[in-house]
Order: sequence, then structure tokens, then C-alpha cells
Amino acid sequence: MAVSSGFLRGVKLFNLLAFCVLFFSLVNFPTAEARVRRYKWEVKYEYRSPDCFKKLVITINGRTPGPTILAQQNDTIIVELKNSLVTENVAIHWHGIRQIGTPWFDGTEGVTQCPILPGETFTYKFVVDRPGTYLYHAHYGMQREAGLYGSIRVSLPDGKPEPFAYDYDRSIILNDWYHRSAHEQSAGLSSLDFQWVGEPDSLLIQGKGRFNCSRLASPTLDVAKVCNTTNPECSPYVLTVIPGKTYRLRVSSLTALSALSFQIEGHNMTVVEADGHYVEPFVVQNLFIYSGETYSVLVKADRNPTRNYWAATHIVSRNSTTPPGLAIFNYYPNHPRKSPPTTAPSGPLWNDARPRLNQSVAIKSHRDHVIPPPQTSDRVIVLLNTQNRVNGFMRWSLNNVSYNLPHIPYLIALKHNLLHAFDQTPPPDGYDFKNYDIFNVSENTNGTTGNGIYKLDFNSTVDIILQNANSMSNKTSETHPWHLHGHDFWVLGYGEGKFDIYNDPRKYNLVDPIMKNTVPVHPYGWTALRFRADNPGAWAFHCHIESHFYMGMGVVFAEGIDRVGKLPSSIMGCVHRN
Amino acid sequence: MAVSSGFLRGVKLFNLLAFCVLFFSLVNFPTAEARVRRYKWEVKYEYRSPDCFKKLVITINGRTPGPTILAQQNDTIIVELKNSLVTENVAIHWHGIRQIGTPWFDGTEGVTQCPILPGETFTYKFVVDRPGTYLYHAHYGMQREAGLYGSIRVSLPDGKPEPFAYDYDRSIILNDWYHRSAHEQSAGLSSLDFQWVGEPDSLLIQGKGRFNCSRLASPTLDVAKVCNTTNPECSPYVLTVIPGKTYRLRVSSLTALSALSFQIEGHNMTVVEADGHYVEPFVVQNLFIYSGETYSVLVKADRNPTRNYWAATHIVSRNSTTPPGLAIFNYYPNHPRKSPPTTAPSGPLWNDARPRLNQSVAIKSHRDHVIPPPQTSDRVIVLLNTQNRVNGFMRWSLNNVSYNLPHIPYLIALKHNLLHAFDQTPPPDGYDFKNYDIFNVSENTNGTTGNGIYKLDFNSTVDIILQNANSMSNKTSETHPWHLHGHDFWVLGYGEGKFDIYNDPRKYNLVDPIMKNTVPVHPYGWTALRFRADNPGAWAFHCHIESHFYMGMGVVFAEGIDRVGKLPSSIMGCVHRN
Repeated sequence: MAVSSGFLRGVKLFNLLAFCVLFFSLVNFPTAEARVRRYKWEVKYEYRSPDCFKKLVITINGRTPGPTILAQQNDTIIVELKNSLVTENVAIHWHGIRQIGTPWFDGTEGVTQCPILPGETFTYKFVVDRPGTYLYHAHYGMQREAGLYGSIRVSLPDGKPEPFAYDYDRSIILNDWYHRSAHEQSAGLSSLDFQWVGEPDSLLIQGKGRFNCSRLASPTLDVAKVCNTTNPECSPYVLTVIPGKTYRLRVSSLTALSALSFQIEGHNMTVVEADGHYVEPFVVQNLFIYSGETYSVLVKADRNPTRNYWAATHIVSRNSTTPPGLAIFNYYPNHPRKSPPTTAPSGPLWNDARPRLNQSVAIKSHRDHVIPPPQTSDRVIVLLNTQNRVNGFMRWSLNNVSYNLPHIPYLIALKHNLLHAFDQTPPPDGYDFKNYDIFNVSENTNGTTGNGIYKLDFNSTVDIILQNANSMSNKTSETHPWHLHGHDFWVLGYGEGKFDIYNDPRKYNLVDPIMKNTVPVHPYGWTALRFRADNPGAWAFHCHIESHFYMGMGVVFAEGIDRVGKLPSSIMGCVHRN
Repeated sequence: MAVSSGFLRGVKLFNLLAFCVLFFSLVNFPTAEARVRRYKWEVKYEYRSPDCFKKLVITINGRTPGPTILAQQNDTIIVELKNSLVTENVAIHWHGIRQIGTPWFDGTEGVTQCPILPGETFTYKFVVDRPGTYLYHAHYGMQREAGLYGSIRVSLPDGKPEPFAYDYDRSIILNDWYHRSAHEQSAGLSSLDFQWVGEPDSLLIQGKGRFNCSRLASPTLDVAKVCNTTNPECSPYVLTVIPGKTYRLRVSSLTALSALSFQIEGHNMTVVEADGHYVEPFVVQNLFIYSGETYSVLVKADRNPTRNYWAATHIVSRNSTTPPGLAIFNYYPNHPRKSPPTTAPSGPLWNDARPRLNQSVAIKSHRDHVIPPPQTSDRVIVLLNTQNRVNGFMRWSLNNVSYNLPHIPYLIALKHNLLHAFDQTPPPDGYDFKNYDIFNVSENTNGTTGNGIYKLDFNSTVDIILQNANSMSNKTSETHPWHLHGHDFWVLGYGEGKFDIYNDPRKYNLVDPIMKNTVPVHPYGWTALRFRADNPGAWAFHCHIESHFYMGMGVVFAEGIDRVGKLPSSIMGCVHRN
């Protein structure tokens, strides 16, 4: 149940405490329009059939994807989250929201908070200080994959114009979907008898996909009981458009594993926003999108209006057998369930990395909205992305260190000086640049685990070079989408091969780089980022592939801890006993 | 890893703190033999195939059933439990151990402790003050069904004789087994679109059973990957015996649902112990056993020694399609894998309640070990067992109140006087005796939920009458095994039909009733119990069918809270935030 309430309504509805909260909100934020938007969510396990296959999912108020948070810039969002899972804890991350002044509500279990116990109600409260397209999702174990995710759409204050025109605004989340539970997947990944999650069973567009139930055909199983393609839950998502109108379509990806392309049959898309920042517009037929990214594209309904069209998403970068995810781009007044007369478009070649790299490079800041990057940095951290074995377990590592979340969240440990909570030795700022061959399987794939963190000088400028390499399989290098909490970063450049610390920085775009919170590192390539360590707190930076992060592919940055305010006791439930 | 250490070894192994623990143990317990037995357990999800079907189970140190705790009377058991489940909490109950002086280590989530978080290590420490056969298992959500259970065997101090003779001592746990996860089952039970768990897929003897994998035959599934009858994990359990020797076989049941019979082809069994109390010996061919019960039977290997025999367990009381569970009773030196030349014995008629009632009545205290019951009681609580609907949800109730566990454990709420933690109004001591028709579906099946408790006067004598009734299905009344925490009770009598509070007490056995902690109430019958409220703490009393308790079939007793010592902070992790 979403309750959005204006100031006057708020005074009537809330008790004295809530009134004080409102009062201080108004003091903190200059715009008179800033509102408090209050949501009450109940999280529980329920049976659903997003792709026609019935399985247990985690719902919010009965839904997956969960309710969309709609707000205006500088609004305060309050989510009262009741955990009604039976034996499982939960935590929700507000993806792309920087949590300035509220680092404890970033929702990252093990980094910024203890998990929320079954039966508990936990209140998240934060300000959405920038317009744009954001996400929320579970950030605990692999619960995101169980369906706990949704959209946050922050619009400009009334009367403030966007740098592009459109008639209507729509949001969709792309996702890949597995029939095995997150418990089964995580157990397989963390067992000595390693069991890879494999390719997804289907792709979902805004929570709807279609699995071919006949693949489960069996003389002994009543297939219709577990998989039924006539179930309306898995009818294709329909995006209805009025001929001639222009749509702002907010496209996000929260895939567990897959890099995707997205297209609308016969229609161009103009990219205008990425991760909450305006993009110098450019046109694509296929939008490549990686887990954790959000884009706005403009689509004009300017084709033959007597029929419907396919919207389709395909897996790229992996040789997947997963069928495309399909939605119907429905021209009003055609019937929304009327299939397009054409076969669904095929996607781009899965193993052609060139157009993906080209798109990455093409994304620049809108010319009227450039936030100039610092021209130099104070520190460069190069993170070599490798697959490793640690004590026989399959892991992912940065500079050969595979990340293990500690039991006590970093933010609490740092603020309360609990030195025993994690390894006080920081992880390395680089790897053996000279000798490591990124194009082949390493001669020694053994790594170690660690939970040390990078402490950044407050307000310093930090460069991160994500260096990709060959995995443990011959001639294989994967795409990793990296997501930074608490900050946006400037994307200074992408390159192929081994990053050259002397020459490559000269090619950085220091003029109009886009700012983002999620960025891919392409196979055998590198990606260079710059950010200011100006947000007091402890912040995860990790591969957004659920299984990769679970297998250690992440680090944590901390900065300005002395400037972090008093931590709310609600985040500290796992600490007092240690 | 189980480390049992004598006093001298202990001094070497443990640090000063452990030494103090040992020292006080010696001060507390008069026998010089009392030892500290220390276990380090890690609980995690792993794939196992107990009945040849591969599924995720909860293991302790890699095993299900978990390691057996072997101790002597008055030993102190210390279990350091590390929760390595990814997102799930856990709690372990020590079934049959009264926890005198340590009510906080009873392991019942919501009653005696907060759950143990992932990453945490929780230390249980308690004294096993009586010899006998006990159990341990998860007591949180429906985790017991996921495989988290094991045996506790407490022997007499050295030199103290049992009142019966045997050559060897063996333990087996009987269980029923489901392929669907505990998460799936609990979600189905607690949804408006009620989904019953159904009959089990197989029966396990000491963690081994056999599912007919051909039932999964499918042209599209590689069945051998998920179900393989050649997997040694599901080879039948083998109980090897030496001809002519007498075995004490400790038989326990931890079924999720099923009432069982157990037999050893061609062999009589002499019942000598029940729930840790000596039984006046009697002979059975079929031992009926209900979830939560433990028995010792003596079996002499006195048959033709040139062959093996079947040990078999069958479901009774429900019309189940589940095949019997089979083990091999192996006469040495026949090969332990050699199938008996006979077909496995069939079980008793599932719907013949008479022999089950007869066995219940036959169990009396051993004549030399009678603990005389108080001849009168201070309070009588009659608990009508009914199936109800509450707000559309399917539930089980006592006196029309379906029990909902609170978030804050009772023991903590009572000791710290947290009045808001649960409903301060106690549930009713009886039902509408005059008008309620126990033989038919109730005219009004609606009930309510509640979390009020029964406060018992310390040291008072309490009678409980379990009154069975028709469920919500026509002509159906189920068997419910009721388990009391923190106490043994005298079993005063069983009867058919509606309990007559004026006449039936005259038939009570007040001479040599057995004491137990778990007892069945038979279909359309009643069972009368008496216990002394002499153990300060808060104690669950509930149907031991996992789904029934989950659906509300339980109550809580509290007594002598002012005598409960200072609660350890380790149990209170879920409280401080409220």
C-alpha cells in the first residue's frame, strides 16, 4: 500500500513524532514541494508463475516486481518494511540513491546494516535528491533472484523541464529468471562440488516471460500443475502506445547473470538518460544493457498503426540457449493481446563485442548538463577481475583476493571502532601488471579470501581501473557490470587489452564523460572510472551479477567515517552479541 | 567435530575460562564422573540424496541426521553452533532434556530464545540429568523437515546397571521425507490458496530411504541427475547383529507428519524404555511410534543366522501411498548388502486404531522405577484439538484459538516484563463441553489466532486433557502426538469419545503410569496427562507434526518466572530493537 501525502494531509495523518520528522525534512530541503512519501511493505514467500512455471518467489505486498516508488526530486521516501519470511532475514538496497547523510539506509547487509529479522518491521528513510531512473532490490545472499526488486522513478519538481520532450513516461525492468531457488543456487555455488547456476530458464520483461512448458513433458507429471502457458500471470507484458505520440521508456536491467540487448521491432530508440544522468542523445536499434543499469529511451509510435510490434530482449556476451523475452508494443486501438504478424526479431550476434563497446563509448553527458570531472586524481586503484580457486572452492577475485562479507557490517565496525570485525589490512591497489597475462588462464589460479577494505581520504579523487582477464576456461572472458554504492562516477574510458597506466589515461574523456553508478567491463578489456570520495560512509563496489558477487567479486570503500552521524539502533541488531 | 574430554584432558585442552566451567560443573554435580562434552557444529545447506532424490538439506558438519550426542548422566553438553545458512536463522531444541536451571537453552524460537543469525556462533550449554534416549532438532519455522535433527543418548554412570540386560546398544531415527523444500511447504500452508503438504515421498530409517526414481521418468529430463537409486547415499541402512546376541535398539521418530509402525521381520521386540523412562517390559511385533517419541526395545538375534531380515516402517493412521521404509537387519557374517530372501513385511492396517490404543495403554512404568504421581491436581486444562479457518486461512486450534508465535520470545518478555510482547489474556481452560460435537465437522469452523499463554502456579500439579475431534473433513479425526518442553508428564489414561470430567478421572492410572514427554491423542479420543509445574521457565506444548504446529497447534506454559536466573544476552538478539 503506497500512501503519498502532502504536507497538510500529513499533519492530519501522522502522530507527533511523524510531524517532527516532516518538520525537519522541511528544514533540510529548500524546495517547498518536497514531500514525504510513505510506503508500507510486507515481504513474504508466495507461489507465482512469472514465466508460466510455478515457483516460490519473494513478493512485496503480493507482487513481483514490487510496487514502483514514484517521487519528485528532494522527496523523502519512508518504507516500513515488514519481514514476513518465515525463517529468513532481508535487506533492501536503493540502487542509485546516494544516501547522502543516511549511509545506514543503503540496505547492504554486511556493509551498512544488520539484516531484518522475520517478524520485524524496519523503516528505511532517505531523500531522493536527483531526478532519474533508479531501482531497489534485496541485497542479502541471493534474494534478489527470488523476485525482490522494483523501480524508483524520480521526476523533476513541478514546472522544471527535461532536456527532451515526450508525451508519456513508462518503466520496465528486464530480468532473467531461474526455476531453481536462490537457496539451491547459492548452495551449489558455495559447495566444493561446485554447481554453476547455468543459463536462465527465461527472460522477463516487467516480471513476465514465457517458458516452454512442453520441455517438462513427462508421463508421470501433471505438467499443467506446475507450468501452464494459459496462466494470465505469464501473458506477455503489453506496452500500449497511441500512434504519433512519443514515449519516454525507462529500461532497467536487474538480471542475475545475463547481459542483454533490448529492441522494439521496427522502431528506433533515442538514448537520453543513463543511471539518472542526461545523455547527449544518440539513436540505437538495439540497446545493450547490463545488470544494474538504467536508461531512458525515447520511442515515437510512428509506424504502421494497424498492427502490434514485438519488444524483445536477448542474451548477449554468453552463448545462451535461453529464448528471448517478448512483450507486445501495442498500437492503440489494436487489441493488446493480438500477436504481431511478424516473427519476433532476432537479437544481435551474442559474441560480437564490438557494438557493445561502441555503445559504451557513445554514452556521453548531455552537452547542457556536463558535470566536469576533476582533471587529476589522488589515487589509482587497479582491480584485476579474475576467477580463482580458494581452498578448492570456485570464486571470483580482485587482485587475487576474493571478498567475504563479515558478520558485523563495516559501517558499524568503523563507526564504533570494532577492530576485530574485519581484517584491518587493506587489499592491494593493483596486481602484478608486468607479468600477469590477461589473455590466458592464469598459471596459478589459487587466490585467497579477505574482508579488508579500501579507506579513502575524504574528498579525495579516486580512479578505479577495472581490468578484465581470461577466466578459468580457455579463451573466455566475461562481461562484468560493476555497481558503486553511495556515488556516481565519471566514466573516463574503455579500452581493449591490458590497461597501460602510462598511455591510456591520456585518452580519457575529461570533457563530457557521463556519470553513472553501474558500468560494464568488456571481455579482455578495461574500464576507467573516477569519483570523489565525498560521501561519508562505507560503500560496496561490486559486480552486479548475483552469483559473481556471492562468489567474492566485490570490494568496499570507506570515507569520512568521522563525519557519519549517530547510527540508528535499528541497523545494529546483529552486533551487540559479539 | 565432537570432542569428548575427560577431566585431565580438559585441563590441557581448554583455556582458563573452560577450566572454570569444568570446575563449577564438578561443584554442581555430585558424581565425580560428570564430564563436559563439547561439540562444534556448523549448520549449512548442502545437496544430499537421502532417498536417492537429490535436494537441498540442512546438514550439521556435513551430515543429516547430524552427529549423535553420546553422554553419561549428569554430563554437561556444550554445543557451539555456527550458523552458515546464507540468509536463514536457526534454533535447535534438545528434545526430552528438561533444561532445569537453563530454560534459555531449550532452543525454541519465539518461546525461549531469539533465532541465531547467519554468521553467528551460539553456544548451548545444558546438563543431561537423566539417562535415556533423546533427540535434537531445529525448532524454527519448518526447518526440522529440511534434515536438521539427530540423537542424544545418555547412558548411566559407569557401573550403574539398567533394569534389563543387553549386549549392544544401537540408535535409529525414523522419519518421513518430502522432496519439496520446507520453504515451499510452509508457503503453501500459510497462503489463502491453501496447499497441503500431502503424503511424504518416502520414509527414512536413520536418514536413508528409497524413492522410486522411475516415477520421475520424462523424455526431457535426465532423471539420473536428480534421482539415482545406485547412489550409495540411499543404500538401505544396515543394522548388523551377531547371532545369539541381544540388542538394545533405540527407536525414535521425528516424522513431519506420519504415525508409524516399526517391525523387524520375524523378530519380537521387548519395549523397555519410553522417552527416557523404564517401561514394565512387554513384547510387540509392531512398535507404533509417533513423532517426537523415543523407545528402547530389546531384540535378540535368535533366528536363522544364514540370511538377512527386513526392518520396515509403515505409515499408519493416514491412508498413505508412501511406500514403506526398509533397512537390512544383517546377521553377521552375511553380506550387509545381501537382500533378504523374503518380500518385505506388510504393515498393520492403517485405519485400525485399536492396536495403537492398546499399545498406548500397555506402556506403564517399570515396577522398580515407579515415580508415583500426585494423587490430585490443582488445575485441569482441557484442550480441544480442532481444525479451523481463521480469516480464510486453514489452521489448527486449541479451544478454537490458533497459536501464533510472537516476535519476542516469551521467556524474555516474561522475565523483563515486556507486556506488549504478547496478549496478556490467557487462553481458555476448556471449550463448550456440553454442546461441541466431537464426532462431526463443527457447524462453525471459524477460529481466532492468539498468543496468550497459560501461567501456572509454581509447583502446582496440572492436568491436561487432550480432546480429539473430527477435523474439517467428514468422518476424519487424526492422530496428534503432543510434546511438552521442560517436563515429563504422567500419562494417566487414554479414552475413546468425549472426555467425561466426572467419570473418566476415576479410571486414571495413579499407581504406575509411565512418564513421557510426547504422547499421542488417538482419533476421536482423549489423553489425560499430569505434571508438576516445577521447572521455572516458559515451555511450549504442541503437536509434534511440523505442519500442525506451524498452523497453530500449540500452547505455552509459564511457571516460576521469578526463579529464573539472569538470562544470557546471547538469546536476546531480536529484542533490543523493540
